[in-house]
Amino acid sequence: MTKAELSRNIYAKKSCLAIGLDVDVERIPRHLTEQYEDPVFEFNKQIIDRTHDLCVCYKLNIAFYESRGLAGWTSLARTLEYIPRDIFTIADAKRGDIGNTSRMYAKTFFELHDFDSITASPYMGVDSIRPFLDFPEKWVILLALTSNEGSEDFQYHTDARGEKLYEKVIRVSQTWGDEQRMMYVVGATHPRQLAEIRQSIPGHFLLIPGVGAQGGSVQEVMDAAYVPGDCGLLINSSRGVIYAGDGEDFADKARKSARILQEQMAPYLV
Amino acid sequence: MTKAELSRNIYAKKSCLAIGLDVDVERIPRHLTEQYEDPVFEFNKQIIDRTHDLCVCYKLNIAFYESRGLAGWTSLARTLEYIPRDIFTIADAKRGDIGNTSRMYAKTFFELHDFDSITASPYMGVDSIRPFLDFPEKWVILLALTSNEGSEDFQYHTDARGEKLYEKVIRVSQTWGDEQRMMYVVGATHPRQLAEIRQSIPGHFLLIPGVGAQGGSVQEVMDAAYVPGDCGLLINSSRGVIYAGDGEDFADKARKSARILQEQMAPYLV
Repeated sequence: MTKAELSRNIYAKKSCLAIGLDVDVERIPRHLTEQYEDPVFEFNKQIIDRTHDLCVCYKLNIAFYESRGLAGWTSLARTLEYIPRDIFTIADAKRGDIGNTSRMYAKTFFELHDFDSITASPYMGVDSIRPFLDFPEKWVILLALTSNEGSEDFQYHTDARGEKLYEKVIRVSQTWGDEQRMMYVVGATHPRQLAEIRQSIPGHFLLIPGVGAQGGSVQEVMDAAYVPGDCGLLINSSRGVIYAGDGEDFADKARKSARILQEQMAPYLV
Repeated sequence: MTKAELSRNIYAKKSCLAIGLDVDVERIPRHLTEQYEDPVFEFNKQIIDRTHDLCVCYKLNIAFYESRGLAGWTSLARTLEYIPRDIFTIADAKRGDIGNTSRMYAKTFFELHDFDSITASPYMGVDSIRPFLDFPEKWVILLALTSNEGSEDFQYHTDARGEKLYEKVIRVSQTWGDEQRMMYVVGATHPRQLAEIRQSIPGHFLLIPGVGAQGGSVQEVMDAAYVPGDCGLLINSSRGVIYAGDGEDFADKARKSARILQEQMAPYLV
């Protein structure tokens, strides 16, 4: 999917919501595990049926599928096939390794599974990321400033000129791929830094985790980093949407949660 | 496996060799793909049969298995089961994500598959690593200074006091787990830094990639970082061993390659 297509979808739906399908089989409603052979796929299917008009992206957290072995990979493949083609998909995998290995990771998520994008860790530098960019029309979403507590440990490491590690990651990686192919992860839990990052890279999409369960708010994010005409944001909610309910009406509850977030976005997306 | 057991194995075998089973199905001998339903497992089985007395560790690069989908995960599980129990195993996965996700990755590699250790990326900090350390007797092998070209991009980022990012990673992570549970990845392609790192953490094992195909030598590594009585090193070779031959005698060729490395290690391990 191109950047222009993604922006178009956002304004058409008045939503820049990404829903994170981080599905823990132990947290899904009991009736699904009792009635279905592949309860994780059934859970995702019902969530997708009830939310696809409210979001522009589904993010699949690979860890949650991988941890269930072959059954998990099957749920993942079925879910990915079920997602409507006009919705952007993210393999949230945080991969990154030397070139010949990253090439294998790229094959997994761009050939074997046809994701639009993958999240990647910058620690190993340019040759750990290039193999992903060799796939035309696929995106790399690079970790910059993450939403978690541990983001303080190394991402703010500051050189003598005052440049922080996450700033250097953004600056240096500009030479690897352009705004048509690269996004950055910036946590909603750092609103001031988010505004500064937006100023330094007005043309790039940012993937924003950390809204909801982790404490950030949609308005803060939109005020800090919304780009008129382009949007430039995918705001992710995982647990806050998919675990909004735990009964037979879980998908309706998820829809309500997604609707609340979408309604907070809509006034900006005119 | 405990640190003492690992050291004991090293001196018993006079080897600190780790063999990387980074098996690309397109590079294995033709007769295997023609004759066997699971040629990757058969390849690994023959390599293990002919090298297990010369090495103390097998490192499985997860990307190479994952990229083949369900068949790849099956080859991985069969290979792991086939490795003798007294040989240390590494899931070379470079994982790391927010806590609830790293917990899932830990389940994958420590419960679903019974690896002794996992490689992890430090970028997201403490809460991305702790879930791996919650598993008793399992190890985290944290990226510090990697062997590849891209290691120059961010790992040398230096603060005003002169501390480089990889040095900070090593210093800060000392508080997360001790030398019984944590190792560090330091590429053989940085021998001077390797000697400095060894001085700063004399008690920790280091996993050393970059010997062979990537240009480092066993002697340089041993001279820079060998710890008498403890060894403190796992020196990895992947392509240099497993692809030493491509005919029916590939496993014999692999053995010869492994033997050459082991013989370079032996004089130190007395």
